[in-house]
Amino acid sequence: MKTLVEALLRGERRALARLLTIVENEREGMDEALATLFPHTGKAWVIGITGAPGTGKSTLMNALTKAYRKAGKTVGIIAVDPTSPFSGGAILGDRIRMRDLAGDSGVFIRSMATRGSLGGLSRATRDAIRVLDAAGFDIVLVETVGAGQSEVDIVRTAQTTIVVEAPGLGDDVQAIKAGILEIADVLVVNKSDRPGADNTVRSLRAMLELGHPASRTQLIQHHGQLLEAPVPAGEHAITLWMPPIVRTVSTEETGIDELMAAIESHRAYLDDDGVLDTLDQQRIEIELHDRLQDALLTRLLRVLPGDSLAGVIRRVQMREMTPQQAVSAVLALQDERLLK
Amino acid sequence: MKTLVEALLRGERRALARLLTIVENEREGMDEALATLFPHTGKAWVIGITGAPGTGKSTLMNALTKAYRKAGKTVGIIAVDPTSPFSGGAILGDRIRMRDLAGDSGVFIRSMATRGSLGGLSRATRDAIRVLDAAGFDIVLVETVGAGQSEVDIVRTAQTTIVVEAPGLGDDVQAIKAGILEIADVLVVNKSDRPGADNTVRSLRAMLELGHPASRTQLIQHHGQLLEAPVPAGEHAITLWMPPIVRTVSTEETGIDELMAAIESHRAYLDDDGVLDTLDQQRIEIELHDRLQDALLTRLLRVLPGDSLAGVIRRVQMREMTPQQAVSAVLALQDERLLK
Repeated sequence: MKTLVEALLRGERRALARLLTIVENEREGMDEALATLFPHTGKAWVIGITGAPGTGKSTLMNALTKAYRKAGKTVGIIAVDPTSPFSGGAILGDRIRMRDLAGDSGVFIRSMATRGSLGGLSRATRDAIRVLDAAGFDIVLVETVGAGQSEVDIVRTAQTTIVVEAPGLGDDVQAIKAGILEIADVLVVNKSDRPGADNTVRSLRAMLELGHPASRTQLIQHHGQLLEAPVPAGEHAITLWMPPIVRTVSTEETGIDELMAAIESHRAYLDDDGVLDTLDQQRIEIELHDRLQDALLTRLLRVLPGDSLAGVIRRVQMREMTPQQAVSAVLALQDERLLK
Repeated sequence: MKTLVEALLRGERRALARLLTIVENEREGMDEALATLFPHTGKAWVIGITGAPGTGKSTLMNALTKAYRKAGKTVGIIAVDPTSPFSGGAILGDRIRMRDLAGDSGVFIRSMATRGSLGGLSRATRDAIRVLDAAGFDIVLVETVGAGQSEVDIVRTAQTTIVVEAPGLGDDVQAIKAGILEIADVLVVNKSDRPGADNTVRSLRAMLELGHPASRTQLIQHHGQLLEAPVPAGEHAITLWMPPIVRTVSTEETGIDELMAAIESHRAYLDDDGVLDTLDQQRIEIELHDRLQDALLTRLLRVLPGDSLAGVIRRVQMREMTPQQAVSAVLALQDERLLK
């Protein structure tokens, strides 16, 4: 494993691919590999890109990657498909982009789908980011399909989050904007040569302004933080960051320089204000909570006597106990076993 | 609390609204209320509806609700917006539908957004379904915005899952189909009067057929089950259900009778084969796992000495220990405290 990690650190692409596979599938040796890599991480800038289908996210990623390459930066890409809990298919990342970027050793693309447990995707994404980071990529782009809660979770592992919109996507889009807007550090209106682009920009701006200074501060606080309780206003107050709105036409590579500049200024903002440090801690806290939940449940199921869970499930099904009561019963059973 | 539940069982709408609020916000008395309700649940048929933005899901829900009302059934609707982790806004459910359905006491609509913890939405949705079920609604419709993993989770609480597609939604849609298709019991091609509808139906059919009998059997097995490990082929073999594809134009209420018939035949299939019993158990198992994870983490955080988690987070940030090592350390700390 050590040899493999050393090969990764030397920049060998085959070692990179193998380590990503190990991390994605939780293969043997993963913990050791990650422990060896870990001290070499923390140099990459992680950018999350999300948005509804039809906004042209993939083409935008492509254009952004080319621009970073032109600026001399290497780019690792993780394309996450949380909608596929069953087939571990590589649906994304292998399409438009590959044509332009194939053969460039400064770019590495990996598609990931959910494998195994439902919570596994966030874990795998975080660890895959670490592998790419240790491999020396300057920029790690994390793209997600869709715009649901799991995408929000994944994007939350990024340092700069880009939310992509486009004009004229119909009915439901307005609803998505409202929620997803709040995780955006940079907003992109792609396909901005289409009719309605001005309207999209205007309505985004209006929605941003609705979140007036006080609430924006709180939102930035929330960013990256486990939302167990609302943050009391004023506590750990952080300087206001107002997400810029960038217009792009990714198929023509228009507006990409402006997008890079917006990302850069967000990065400078985080560095200047020491916000990055706080956000880093919050990111780690979320990750530890996730991992602890998994570890605790695994242990409980191991400790539990044979078919006692099946018995409890049966009683809930018969409506003899509520799920709440079932949880108390199972916890009591576990404690009894642990104390013996 | 008992009086409130009694009022609910008598069909009083104000009691229903209050109980939903209690359940959504985990207000005091929730556990008692749910325990009192619980024996009165299990009668409603729960239908989940999901699909990408722009497919016209809301209009379809509206048309379907009206059709059920004409057939003499009462309908409770939960519109879930998992994209909104911050603002508890009621974005959905209050739009087109209200115009047609307002004033009909046989219909009740509730919008829900994430509140508090991230895992809280599935919990709240499940409990809200129980409240509507106990209130005597024949049909409970659960609608989600978007088509990500969290939507998949939510839809998994349903007995019949409808996935809505529409022609001509652009690039990314193909990718969404692949994953979301596998949770569909009934597929709807809405806006089927648009150009390209035949293509959409054809490509959906092709994708369904790709999942040949053997793998389909396994998929149905997976449906509603915690995906901790792949199901060994052949184990608990279940008769094949091939999702029918129904064409609708929801704005003209075309195809809605066919949709109802498809839902009915899925229900008959589940009842006939005793599959429902297995799926019920799997649904309860997922729910208990979710709740146990929450309960275990809450307990761990309570037991942990003062700022020990903060210390561990700091060490991960300094790259002195990996997140994996941090988890082991925290678990050891907990056990030490519990043993004292």
